[in-house]
Amino acid sequence: MNSSAPAPTRLYHVALSPFCRKVRLTLAEKKIEVELVEEKYWEQSPELLRRNPAGKVPVLRHEGKMMPESQAICEYLDETVPQPPLMPRQASERYEVRRLCAWFDDKFNAEVTQPIMHERVWKKVQNLGYPDSATIKNGLKAIKVHLDYMTALLEQRRWLAGNNMTLADFAAAAHLSCLDYISDVDWDRSNTVRDWYATIKSRPAFRSLLADQMPGVKASPQYAELDF
Amino acid sequence: MNSSAPAPTRLYHVALSPFCRKVRLTLAEKKIEVELVEEKYWEQSPELLRRNPAGKVPVLRHEGKMMPESQAICEYLDETVPQPPLMPRQASERYEVRRLCAWFDDKFNAEVTQPIMHERVWKKVQNLGYPDSATIKNGLKAIKVHLDYMTALLEQRRWLAGNNMTLADFAAAAHLSCLDYISDVDWDRSNTVRDWYATIKSRPAFRSLLADQMPGVKASPQYAELDF
Repeated sequence: MNSSAPAPTRLYHVALSPFCRKVRLTLAEKKIEVELVEEKYWEQSPELLRRNPAGKVPVLRHEGKMMPESQAICEYLDETVPQPPLMPRQASERYEVRRLCAWFDDKFNAEVTQPIMHERVWKKVQNLGYPDSATIKNGLKAIKVHLDYMTALLEQRRWLAGNNMTLADFAAAAHLSCLDYISDVDWDRSNTVRDWYATIKSRPAFRSLLADQMPGVKASPQYAELDF
Repeated sequence: MNSSAPAPTRLYHVALSPFCRKVRLTLAEKKIEVELVEEKYWEQSPELLRRNPAGKVPVLRHEGKMMPESQAICEYLDETVPQPPLMPRQASERYEVRRLCAWFDDKFNAEVTQPIMHERVWKKVQNLGYPDSATIKNGLKAIKVHLDYMTALLEQRRWLAGNNMTLADFAAAAHLSCLDYISDVDWDRSNTVRDWYATIKSRPAFRSLLADQMPGVKASPQYAELDF
């Protein structure tokens, strides 16, 4: 072994983080081998802060560098490992991918993923007390609007941002898969969204996510089923 | 006039939004003429929601389309109007720009811009009561850490993300300029950051920002001064 070779690619992550999942899907789709290391980011260890002064996951150790920020990582991976492409070639289509990634990572996250996962998962894991049912109820109300929005998009296009699968699909699937783990996606609301999710869920890149087990939080029965 | 020509480029914005400012700087640097339309986004008018279902500013009307999401807009403008380039050519340098844009638009915004501007400006403008001094104090404590981080970066590089000016500099300058309007940047903390800001502030692209006047909230005396 060449001692000057960079260390193998490693992702510091937590299993039920949508941002980490978006990166995992991108790595797997690009067939980049990665070592996963669970990082209890809420403990803000000095090692974590050294790896990423923002104190967050994901952090990708790759080609000898420490790389935080999920969207910047995914675009970097797409630019440096072109096959299969996860960004379209046309500027207007790339805009649409980035708009939708921001939609899910900002708006969907703030209205749905973050509040629901905080109440149902992170409070339990971090010993922060009982879930607040009003917050969960608001999140479950908000997800309906988002499922309807996704339905409207998918009725015009094969994938969320156009006729090819892109990072926007991975961003959306990453959020929905976290919520599906705790059974908080009402798939009966939209056959269109269900079909889209069934297609993306059956990709080999999804397998590692479907094998996740969060200690103390059991996955819902349909979580790993390809036919749900 | 050709009746099928798209309507002129227009930005729906608010003057003291860092996200709108990043887009304005990019438009000006690319010499794209734009009509600015103030949008009281907190009133969530039906027109705003039609233009952008996320109910936020900025929204750019451009080439016959309505485009929300500041980062997606700026990357689109950079890809379609290449001169002057605001993204480097190398993937690793592009990663660094995107990482820093996320740093300022997520972390700096959450810890500094959003809380301070909410307490000092938006509560006044939207009639939401008195500013909370503890929140402002926390924001002013957090900005010190960020100024030190910027100093560390700028001691290694001419600009924040490398040796050329990029979107990362516009993101950072957009946030700092909002806080400077209300005199909340302690320029004495870092000559390095002050010099960087003086350089970017003196660009023609900055002029429109320096002319902003928020009704009811007076700009600080140094806000529009190039020598501060």
